Amino acid sequence: MRSTTGWRANGPTTDLHRVSIPRRDLRRDDVAVRVDFCGVCHSDLHAVRSLPEDGPGLVPGHEFTGVVTETGPDVTRFRVGDPVAVGNIVDSCGACPMCEAGQENFCRDFPTLTYGGTDRHDGSTTLGGYAREYVVRDRFTHPLPAGLDPAAAAPLLCAGITVWEPLRALGVGPGTRVAVSGLGGLGHLAVKFAAALGAEVAVISRSADRTAEAARLGAHDLVVSSDPGRMAAARDRFDVVIDTIPVPHDVKPYLGLLALDGTLSHLGNLGPVTVEALDLLIGRKKLSSAGSGGLPATAEMLDFCAARGITADVEVLPSARVADALDRLDRNDVRYRFVLDLSDLS
Amino acid sequence: MRSTTGWRANGPTTDLHRVSIPRRDLRRDDVAVRVDFCGVCHSDLHAVRSLPEDGPGLVPGHEFTGVVTETGPDVTRFRVGDPVAVGNIVDSCGACPMCEAGQENFCRDFPTLTYGGTDRHDGSTTLGGYAREYVVRDRFTHPLPAGLDPAAAAPLLCAGITVWEPLRALGVGPGTRVAVSGLGGLGHLAVKFAAALGAEVAVISRSADRTAEAARLGAHDLVVSSDPGRMAAARDRFDVVIDTIPVPHDVKPYLGLLALDGTLSHLGNLGPVTVEALDLLIGRKKLSSAGSGGLPATAEMLDFCAARGITADVEVLPSARVADALDRLDRNDVRYRFVLDLSDLS
Repeated sequence: MRSTTGWRANGPTTDLHRVSIPRRDLRRDDVAVRVDFCGVCHSDLHAVRSLPEDGPGLVPGHEFTGVVTETGPDVTRFRVGDPVAVGNIVDSCGACPMCEAGQENFCRDFPTLTYGGTDRHDGSTTLGGYAREYVVRDRFTHPLPAGLDPAAAAPLLCAGITVWEPLRALGVGPGTRVAVSGLGGLGHLAVKFAAALGAEVAVISRSADRTAEAARLGAHDLVVSSDPGRMAAARDRFDVVIDTIPVPHDVKPYLGLLALDGTLSHLGNLGPVTVEALDLLIGRKKLSSAGSGGLPATAEMLDFCAARGITADVEVLPSARVADALDRLDRNDVRYRFVLDLSDLS
Repeated sequence: MRSTTGWRANGPTTDLHRVSIPRRDLRRDDVAVRVDFCGVCHSDLHAVRSLPEDGPGLVPGHEFTGVVTETGPDVTRFRVGDPVAVGNIVDSCGACPMCEAGQENFCRDFPTLTYGGTDRHDGSTTLGGYAREYVVRDRFTHPLPAGLDPAAAAPLLCAGITVWEPLRALGVGPGTRVAVSGLGGLGHLAVKFAAALGAEVAVISRSADRTAEAARLGAHDLVVSSDPGRMAAARDRFDVVIDTIPVPHDVKPYLGLLALDGTLSHLGNLGPVTVEALDLLIGRKKLSSAGSGGLPATAEMLDFCAARGITADVEVLPSARVADALDRLDRNDVRYRFVLDLSDLS
């Protein structure tokens, strides 16, 4: 067993503790990664807040970039010094129809999560990327393409792929009309991706204050959701609505924006969603969801980002300020993703 | 004003009364239709059951076939003697994006329903096809293709188009795997259509008793929904599930049958539907709905049916037995659609 330094939440508060944590010795197909940057995801906040007072705690972090420092004997894709990126799953069964389709995120046997998951070999609980080192199966490690800033690229591995997959699955491209609700970590990347894919993009926002910001990200329009007149004028207007609002909410107003055969992709695991059948029936609309991504789509997204120069808009903080990051995220005080710089753990 | 004879429900019971009812004098673009056969739809039963004790009552019926007996001066598509068919909408605004897309059923200004609707010109309440004559705008009248039995074709105009539209919108054809739950008026036509479109079709049924019947309709398999083992074995198996169960129910088991990017089309206006976000997220599944159809799709469906020799499986009753039809429909005692023969009203 090896060890590294990381940030552990011991209970449902954001004052994480700097602790020594174990990492497994490398298996034949493992790489050891020096974690340089790890994004701070809403899931991290939710996971921390959901901790019991006296459990084993957890080390969050599932979108990170770094450099390979060691490779197992069977690893051929990576060499020491390679820049790499890891997302929110680190293993899967590899044999079910979903894995065979390259959708390891939907593995029938449940994928191994980057933190809080159960290792398929030794049964241990995975500890996340708020740490200086991670040991991960080579297959679930992505080469980080040259030209992508490693801090700004880290959020691509969770926020990015979570919006990339539905955009691609729904065929977004030139001629598609896309609306994005919720201009946060996911939403701002959805706008960038949809615009770069050639779609006509609008942001749905509670106020017109963010019009210039939406335009800067690549949006062609902003619809003010608090203005019934503007929402009515936008009725039937979009082929795809990417709904990234990270808390439970009524989807009816967003269904109303969909054109014939349009799809609302309601992201995140926000529990039960209720719709009136008639709100789907009129216009043959669809309610969908998505989350995380498979290995092929993640590789495709990273290549696309490198080719188009797309990364997340990030605020980088030393990892010792993780509590600030989580607290400010909770107040929605971030544009658009915090990224922890783990070099202060060296 | 002209008059005809029809069957009126005066309150929430199925003992309809034979009464004289008014029909409007023909407008310039109207045709008068001698109604020969009218299907008995679940909506009819629901509408009757929902009547107040002392309201004006209603005349149900919104899927009928007959013969043109008179034409307004501007009518060019029909001549006296032409066999025709009418469905559940008889007018729409004609100017909104949905009407322009040929989806008059989703008219933004709400389509005029065949019964219980409000006529756009004189404000009267429409009276349905459980009557010997109907007066209808030519645009909402379909030529009944030669070779289609007029009794067995009547249900195509509501049950048929309601399943045809989602099958077509979802691209069902060779290579598509389709499951149909609920083997009633809609379901049996969904099986016939999907099989004729070249899809691989399974029926989802509570018992294996209907295996031979499902095969007769064109299905290649039957999945027993009451058998957890068989439902688990059918997980991720279908691209499309057409859910025709006519009462509110949990859609979770049917979502579980969908393959990656599959769609559950949950037909009918059954009020609120609740899904767990995770049941959509895992597999990027979609919940959709559909109902009725636009004029172009209805014409396309009728042509397809004529070319393939497809009609509904019907039990024809003299219209005087309408109460029997409604009561037996309520007990699900029909294979698969009652059709009233209106000739006893002459």
